Amino acid sequence: MAKVYVSSKVKFCAAHRLHNEALSDEENIALYGKCNNPNGHGHNYTLEVTFKGGIDPVTGMVVDFRDVRKLLDDYIGEKFDHKYLDKEISELKGKVSSVENLAVICWQLLKKVNFPAELHKVTLYETDNSAVEYYGE
Amino acid sequence: MAKVYVSSKVKFCAAHRLHNEALSDEENIALYGKCNNPNGHGHNYTLEVTFKGGIDPVTGMVVDFRDVRKLLDDYIGEKFDHKYLDKEISELKGKVSSVENLAVICWQLLKKVNFPAELHKVTLYETDNSAVEYYGE
Amino acid sequence: MAKVYVSSKVKFCAAHRLHNEALSDEENIALYGKCNNPNGHGHNYTLEVTFKGGIDPVTGMVVDFRDVRKLLDDYIGEKFDHKYLDKEISELKGKVSSVENLAVICWQLLKKVNFPAELHKVTLYETDNSAVEYYGE
Amino acid sequence: MAKVYVSSKVKFCAAHRLHNEALSDEENIALYGKCNNPNGHGHNYTLEVTFKGGIDPVTGMVVDFRDVRKLLDDYIGEKFDHKYLDKEISELKGKVSSVENLAVICWQLLKKVNFPAELHKVTLYETDNSAVEYYGE
Amino acid sequence: MAKVYVSSKVKFCAAHRLHNEALSDEENIALYGKCNNPNGHGHNYTLEVTFKGGIDPVTGMVVDFRDVRKLLDDYIGEKFDHKYLDKEISELKGKVSSVENLAVICWQLLKKVNFPAELHKVTLYETDNSAVEYYGE
Amino acid sequence: MAKVYVSSKVKFCAAHRLHNEALSDEENIALYGKCNNPNGHGHNYTLEVTFKGGIDPVTGMVVDFRDVRKLLDDYIGEKFDHKYLDKEISELKGKVSSVENLAVICWQLLKKVNFPAELHKVTLYETDNSAVEYYGE
Repeated sequence: MAKVYVSSKVKFCAAHRLHNEALSDEENIALYGKCNNPNGHGHNYTLEVTFKGGIDPVTGMVVDFRDVRKLLDDYIGEKFDHKYLDKEISELKGKVSSVENLAVICWQLLKKVNFPAELHKVTLYETDNSAVEYYGE
Repeated sequence: MAKVYVSSKVKFCAAHRLHNEALSDEENIALYGKCNNPNGHGHNYTLEVTFKGGIDPVTGMVVDFRDVRKLLDDYIGEKFDHKYLDKEISELKGKVSSVENLAVICWQLLKKVNFPAELHKVTLYETDNSAVEYYGE
Repeated sequence: MAKVYVSSKVKFCAAHRLHNEALSDEENIALYGKCNNPNGHGHNYTLEVTFKGGIDPVTGMVVDFRDVRKLLDDYIGEKFDHKYLDKEISELKGKVSSVENLAVICWQLLKKVNFPAELHKVTLYETDNSAVEYYGE
Repeated sequence: MAKVYVSSKVKFCAAHRLHNEALSDEENIALYGKCNNPNGHGHNYTLEVTFKGGIDPVTGMVVDFRDVRKLLDDYIGEKFDHKYLDKEISELKGKVSSVENLAVICWQLLKKVNFPAELHKVTLYETDNSAVEYYGE
Repeated sequence: MAKVYVSSKVKFCAAHRLHNEALSDEENIALYGKCNNPNGHGHNYTLEVTFKGGIDPVTGMVVDFRDVRKLLDDYIGEKFDHKYLDKEISELKGKVSSVENLAVICWQLLKKVNFPAELHKVTLYETDNSAVEYYGE
Repeated sequence: MAKVYVSSKVKFCAAHRLHNEALSDEENIALYGKCNNPNGHGHNYTLEVTFKGGIDPVTGMVVDFRDVRKLLDDYIGEKFDHKYLDKEISELKGKVSSVENLAVICWQLLKKVNFPAELHKVTLYETDNSAVEYYGE
C-alpha cells in the first residue's frame, strides 16, 4: 500500500503581542522591539497541515480532503480566527505568542483529535517571510 | 514623452477592530460580526501604489523606484506597521478602520507629500481575497 | 463621499470542451486543437469581481465583504463548481465554453442580482496565463 | 561531491471524476459527493518533481534543467494535458482518479525512464489547497 | 458583440545595467547606485500583454490564446531571453535599459505586428515589487 | 524542548553565465546552449534558509527572525545583489555559476557564521521553475 503525504491549509487573521510577563518592560522592549507594542499588532496566518498514510484501495484516498478541511476549520479556524491570541487562547497562558509556540500548539490541538490519518507536520506562516515547521519532536 | 504607470508595494502587519462608536454594542455586532471582537484581530496588509508620469529622457525613469520605496517605508510602513490601527492612527479618530477607509487615508497621506510623480492609484489588500482600489475621486 | 473599488474572488473546478456544433469535426479540430478533445478537459477557474461605490459613512464600507463572498458562492460557486460546463450550464446552450464567453455569462448572472453596489468588472482566470476582463460593454 | 536536490514543475489541465466502479451509485455519491458528478469536473494540476544527485564537477549540474523539463513535458504533459483522466489514462483502469493515485502513477511513469539522476519525490497539486507528496515508498 | 480584454504572459531572464553614456561615471553612480555596476546584474522579467476586442461569435474567442503565446514567444521571448539587454537589443541604443524604456519598446515591437486583436496594455515586472504599465500614450 | 524549523528568505538580482573555462567554446555551447551567451543573462534569485533548534522557554523563539533576516542581508544580499556572479564572487573562481554550485556556496557562507541556531537547509530558486535544495551533505 503506497504511502503518501497529503497537505491542506487554513488561514486565520489574528492580533497578538510578543511579551514575556516574567521580564521587565525594558527587557521586553529590548528583546522584541516593535513586536512588543502594548496595543498589539496582527497577521494573516496560514497553517499548512500534512498527514501521512497508505492509500485506501477502495476510496483511492488517504483521507478525504473535505474531512481535512473540516478538521482545520473546526479546530484551528474557529479557535484562532479574528482573535487577540494572547488574550483569548488559553493554551498561550504564561507563554509568548511567538510563531514557534503557536505552531506547537496547533500540532497539539490536532494531535488530540481522533482522525483517520497520522499527523506528520504543521507549517505555520506568520508572513510570507516567516515560517515555522514542527514534526512533534 | 511616453506616459507610463509605475507601481511598487509596502507591507505592514497591524491589529484593528471594526467598530462604530456611534452605534450600540448590539448594532456593532450585527453589523460587523466577528470583526467587532472587542479584543481586535489583525492582518498582513499590502499597499500597492501607482504613479503616473512621463519617462525622463535623461534618467529613463518616471521616478526612481528606490525613492518610491523610501516614500512607502517612511509614510506608510513607519506609520502603520506593528500598530493597533484604531488606537494609534490619528486619522482614524471617529472612523471605522475598514479597508476602504484605510485605503483613502493612505491616498491622502501620500498625496500630501511633495513627490516628483503624480499619484494615480492605491490598492490595499487586507487579505488575499479582500482588496480596495482608490483613485482619489 | 469617496468612491472606491472593492474586489473579491471565488474559485471553481470544472470540465469543459471547446466545440462549435455549427462546424464540422475537422473544422473544430483545426480551430481548437487539443481543447476540442471530445472527452473534455478541465481547469481551476478563479473569478475576481469588482464593485464600485461610495463609502457608507456609518459602516465605513462600500458593501460588506461577507455579502460579496456569499454572492459569489451562491451565484457562481454553486452554479459552476464541479460541473461539466458545456453539459450543465444552460447559459452555454449553443455557445462555445471559451473563457471569454464564460466571463460574459458570469457578468450577466451577477448583474441580474439586486445587490447594494455597482458591478464594475469581472476578471476570469482559466489558468495562470489566460485571463479575460469584462466591463459589461 | 555535494549532494543536492533539484526540482522543476509541469502543469496539465484535465477533467476527471471520483468514482469506484465496484461500489453502487449511492455509495459513490455518499463517498465522493460532488466529485462524483457523472459528467466530471476538472483541474489545473501542477506536478513538481525532485531529483537527487551529486554535482558533476565538469558541468556544475546534477542534471540539465532543460532535460528535466523535456522529461516532464514528454512523460507527464503529453500524457495528461487536456485529457479526461478516467477515460484516457490506461494506468487508471480500475482505479479511482484521486490525486493520491495520480501522484503514484506519475512517480511510476518517471521511475521507468532511464534518466541521469535519481527520482526523489513527486508533489502533485490538484488545487492550491490539496497537495500530495510521494517518495516511492 | 461583447468587448473583452484578454491577457497572457511571457517571461525572460536577462542581464542589464542602468547607465547613461551622456553622463559622467560619477553622475551615473549618483543617479543609479548599484544598478550602475559596470559588470551588470539581471532579472527574471515578466511581461503581461492585454488585447482588447469583440468576441467572435463563431469561435467564441477574441483571439486564440495559443496565437497570443506564440506572438509573445516569437517577438519578446526570442528577442530578450538570456540576453544582456544593453549590449544586444538594438532598440536600446543610446537609451537607458530602465524597466520604463523596456516596457515602451515591448509595446512598439508588438504594435508593429499584424495581429487580429488590438493591443491595449503591456505590464512589465522587473521584480515582484517593480512594475510598469504602458498603454501607448 | 520542542524542536522546530524556522525559515526566512532573501532575494538578489544578479547576472551570470554558464561557462566552464576548461572546455572549448564549442563544448560550452553544446553543454549550456543560450545560458552560455558570452554577454551573460540574469535572474531574480530567492534564497530560503531553514534553521533548526529548540524553542527558548524565555523568548519563545528558536532565533529572532530579525537576526535571521540581518544574517541573510549581510552575508547573502550584500554579497550577491546587483552583481555579475562569475566576475565578482570569489568563491566561484574556477567554478560554473550553476544554481547547484551557488546553493552550496550560500550554505558554506552561512555555515561559517557564528549563529545561535543550526543551519538545516538552503533552497535556492533561480526561476519559479528551477529550485535546488542543499543540506550540507
